Amino acid sequence: MKQLQAIQRLVGEFAKLPSIGRKTAQRLTYHIIDTPSSEAMQLAEAIVEAKRRVRYCDKCYGLSEAELCEICSDPQRDGSKVCVVENVRDYWAVENTGSFRGLYHVLHGAISPIDGIGADDIKLRELLQRISSEGIKEVIIATSPTVPGEATALYISKLLKNIPDVEVSRIAKGIPIGGELEYADEVTLARAIEGRNRL
Amino acid sequence: MKQLQAIQRLVGEFAKLPSIGRKTAQRLTYHIIDTPSSEAMQLAEAIVEAKRRVRYCDKCYGLSEAELCEICSDPQRDGSKVCVVENVRDYWAVENTGSFRGLYHVLHGAISPIDGIGADDIKLRELLQRISSEGIKEVIIATSPTVPGEATALYISKLLKNIPDVEVSRIAKGIPIGGELEYADEVTLARAIEGRNRL
Repeated sequence: MKQLQAIQRLVGEFAKLPSIGRKTAQRLTYHIIDTPSSEAMQLAEAIVEAKRRVRYCDKCYGLSEAELCEICSDPQRDGSKVCVVENVRDYWAVENTGSFRGLYHVLHGAISPIDGIGADDIKLRELLQRISSEGIKEVIIATSPTVPGEATALYISKLLKNIPDVEVSRIAKGIPIGGELEYADEVTLARAIEGRNRL
Repeated sequence: MKQLQAIQRLVGEFAKLPSIGRKTAQRLTYHIIDTPSSEAMQLAEAIVEAKRRVRYCDKCYGLSEAELCEICSDPQRDGSKVCVVENVRDYWAVENTGSFRGLYHVLHGAISPIDGIGADDIKLRELLQRISSEGIKEVIIATSPTVPGEATALYISKLLKNIPDVEVSRIAKGIPIGGELEYADEVTLARAIEGRNRL
């Protein structure tokens, strides 16, 4: 016997989500069937509402309910500094540290020829436009220290080299706080020694 | 700055699902924002449709779109045999083997005093009713070989001991096919020896 069509459909939709495999999709589907209708409806409504209300900020491409997001429209933030991140998750990771009071720029990806993602596929042109029009003085490249993240950081630093009066920096790479040296991988440890700071 | 309310709400709803933690809920939420509206709506609609159309079968408590599920209303199935499972996932695991042509009975749980689940909290009374009214001749207890599953199997076998002409069996426990003996845990291996079959 085949599964009910409505079940198959929901399993299929859940399985399209990232990090959800077929087995988890089935588990989620059976949970939806088991759960009171009101709760299942809340999930469905939250999806619809998020899609209806949330858009990308016209300036930084972070999430927003208006043309400009709260950070971009906050006069207290330092508009001369911009922190470049790969995606909205990284944006929130930086913002949650509470240590950065400038603006952001979300690239929505990183350069990765293997995945067919080039410089034109991410919000790089928009970053250059912002730098020339907003009087940005410092660009902090906070892409991940992965192959695509490093490639993107290198690309951006080369692009910005010829723009006068713009300082470009890269977040520090090294041993994580609380991490034990003996368990650090060699590349990280080599980078930590290379990037040592005078005390 | 705080996350947008619509985002917080959707993260919260995703995080209520089983096996979805806070980080995964955020990842799913950002995916929904990134995805075309039509696809996100398909997920929302699939949830609504599954809740609207799918119910429990009045007889076996499996999933159904009518009062009786397809298996319970199929005259080709052997109504004298019933396979007792803990949940709908296990029901499908047995059905997908293609080796059982009888009916099912879904308990929707297993006896587990530690979790406050007693015999009255699962569909046991309904099983007894079916046995007395449907002329069932064989009950195959296919609960999992876990503590709650074994407790439930023992409880059912004691309940059915006094009912004449009903054969009760338990699925075999032993080394999984393709499993290597040296890696089997001691309890499983002891059970496999205990339950040896004459060749």
